[in-house]
Amino acid sequence: MIGEIIAIGDELTSGRITNTTSGYAARALFLLGHEILAMHTIGDVPERIGSTLKMALERADFVIVTGGLGATTDDLTTEAVVQALGLRTVIHPGVHANLNARLSRELHSGSISLARLAQLPEGAEVLDDDCRMAGYLLRYQGKPIFFLPGVPPQMEILLERKVLPGLRAFFPAPSRPVCQQVYRTCGLQEVAINGLLAPLEQNRSLQVGYYPVGCEVHVSLTYPHLVNGMHDPLFVETDAFIRQALGAHLFGTGDDTLAAVTGKLLLSKDAMLGVAESCTGGLISSTITETAGSSQWFGGGVVVYSNQMKHLLLDIDPAFLAQHGAVSQETARAMATRAAARLQCDIAVSATGIAGPDGGSAEKPVGTVYLGLWYRSRVIDRLCHFTGSRRQIQEKTTQTALDLVRHALLES
Amino acid sequence: MIGEIIAIGDELTSGRITNTTSGYAARALFLLGHEILAMHTIGDVPERIGSTLKMALERADFVIVTGGLGATTDDLTTEAVVQALGLRTVIHPGVHANLNARLSRELHSGSISLARLAQLPEGAEVLDDDCRMAGYLLRYQGKPIFFLPGVPPQMEILLERKVLPGLRAFFPAPSRPVCQQVYRTCGLQEVAINGLLAPLEQNRSLQVGYYPVGCEVHVSLTYPHLVNGMHDPLFVETDAFIRQALGAHLFGTGDDTLAAVTGKLLLSKDAMLGVAESCTGGLISSTITETAGSSQWFGGGVVVYSNQMKHLLLDIDPAFLAQHGAVSQETARAMATRAAARLQCDIAVSATGIAGPDGGSAEKPVGTVYLGLWYRSRVIDRLCHFTGSRRQIQEKTTQTALDLVRHALLES
Repeated sequence: MIGEIIAIGDELTSGRITNTTSGYAARALFLLGHEILAMHTIGDVPERIGSTLKMALERADFVIVTGGLGATTDDLTTEAVVQALGLRTVIHPGVHANLNARLSRELHSGSISLARLAQLPEGAEVLDDDCRMAGYLLRYQGKPIFFLPGVPPQMEILLERKVLPGLRAFFPAPSRPVCQQVYRTCGLQEVAINGLLAPLEQNRSLQVGYYPVGCEVHVSLTYPHLVNGMHDPLFVETDAFIRQALGAHLFGTGDDTLAAVTGKLLLSKDAMLGVAESCTGGLISSTITETAGSSQWFGGGVVVYSNQMKHLLLDIDPAFLAQHGAVSQETARAMATRAAARLQCDIAVSATGIAGPDGGSAEKPVGTVYLGLWYRSRVIDRLCHFTGSRRQIQEKTTQTALDLVRHALLES
Repeated sequence: MIGEIIAIGDELTSGRITNTTSGYAARALFLLGHEILAMHTIGDVPERIGSTLKMALERADFVIVTGGLGATTDDLTTEAVVQALGLRTVIHPGVHANLNARLSRELHSGSISLARLAQLPEGAEVLDDDCRMAGYLLRYQGKPIFFLPGVPPQMEILLERKVLPGLRAFFPAPSRPVCQQVYRTCGLQEVAINGLLAPLEQNRSLQVGYYPVGCEVHVSLTYPHLVNGMHDPLFVETDAFIRQALGAHLFGTGDDTLAAVTGKLLLSKDAMLGVAESCTGGLISSTITETAGSSQWFGGGVVVYSNQMKHLLLDIDPAFLAQHGAVSQETARAMATRAAARLQCDIAVSATGIAGPDGGSAEKPVGTVYLGLWYRSRVIDRLCHFTGSRRQIQEKTTQTALDLVRHALLES
């Protein structure tokens, strides 16, 4: 079915907060075979909320609205919807009872504004069984409209638990099942991959998309209508071609992350990884430990941001640093070697470089990064020249460091 | 002036990539006094691109379009615009010359698709002086339309260097200067802050917004029409009231981050911070080193994810860990104390907890986190119960750890 998503909030249209909830919903809906016609982000302006909702209801089979349901006085979504669709407001008994119970406990709460939470459009079905989170389903001329909180964690819970099952009930047989695979690569530029996959362009029944994310490029393959999905010979053949063309640059599919894929390889070799970070300042470790279960293959690391720390935690001699420079091939190699010994790990990766915005020179401009890798008593290093902001350079360094570990494990 | 933003890409409507460019543009435009009527995200569908652009041109004074300008065959924005606005396509000589120069160097590139980059709508003014980045300005019935690449770093550069100055030239005197301040707090819930600031609600000439971001709540104060801006007595008085009401929970304004504010405090006390992280796995260090110049007050840290690492890097006895548990008040205190000694820093913060999704128990459920802080030979600790996903728990722990450091410095 076709859906539209409307995100509401002045914090979004003024750019104070990045809208992440619409993309989260779009992803979940897309994977269920729905098409998102458009996602709109608008301010807390009742007339605009009303007109955008009406336009969406004309074009789409269902609508998801996020934001503006809270207790504070700048939350105007329910009032706008009641106005636009010509509904009445009623006090919802479940929400009201829950608020009363909370008010007696939470004396610091502004009771006046909390009472607004119980006022819902007539016919609204509250989504949270405990009536603690804002959010309700409204049926309008046969079409479902799901209203969800704008705060991402609450929105995500209600989407998974209520909206997706609710849509399945509304539309039992998705009319356009989508057969899609996302191929994740690292180390090749978008245009180079486009060249490798050029033969696919002649096939009109499929779509290929290219999405650079730092040093990664994600390639999506979409067959709009395959009865047997991923078992269809057409898909199997195309999939084999893509895997062949991308080779070892392909690190995973779907939701695979470089960290998770590298972790699986480490597990299969019963190897523990250690990390010594200078310019990434903890981002390699933090990216690894975002992965649940990473404790099985990651013991820890050191953030040796200063030269003193390189000495204190890795026993790298200040004279050595003075001779070669903290940002050098020699220091990257020493960091990896010393980390392997100090952290008693089986494989160690290191990064030292100039993330900027200051600290660059003609010889070593901002973006100059040396990576080091110790594995089975061998040390390798790599010099990279990254572009972008400080954070982007740190992110590209992290991706490339993890990919270096992956390749070392693959080749062993 | 009133603007609309259109982001184009199947990777956005399918949720594979989060749209961050629209929010980035919205923020920059809002701060210049422009109002964003709506931000739309749509797929690479020529008819939809055309109809959305036409609708925006009817309502807005200017339009910014991002995405779909690349060299790969799924990039259809220019074709859609030419079709919708009834324009011709021409070969842009500067882009063409640049492509030829690149093609002779980059033999691996798919030359067929790169040639598409030189085909622009007639009248388009290329934004990048070097003709390396996609992006152009089109004037349509007197209204400027800026087309920018969808890749965030390129989009951000062209926005800052070309779009914002370009808009200033188009609209010399912004018709509605906005006087806005964002107050950033940590440690109080949204509803509690709403209660503290309730007296402001009676003033109809201002708007107050509340935006929770993990354990932080950002409060925006907006006066749509103040001739003297932030020097206006009305603003000065309101600002003083808000600062008084929020007290030490207020950590900064505008773009201030907890890490940057804590860093300034550390600098003022000539103190170096050290970090010992277990459940956050590097996120505290990584959040700190996202701040340019953090090397002045942050030397480094240890990511002691495993018990072995707590022993190897912090000399915490395995028997001690066995007795108290890795997630305990005692371990948090020992981590902070040992980090201060081992890292030779003036103040040290530690975090140990259960980020989930596994590892929780009835006694210590997922979200249980102990923080430790060593400063001037005194140790304090704090027990927190966070909710949310693994990443959200790590983020809330990071915010609370930095806030603990901030309060310790403020109180000394």
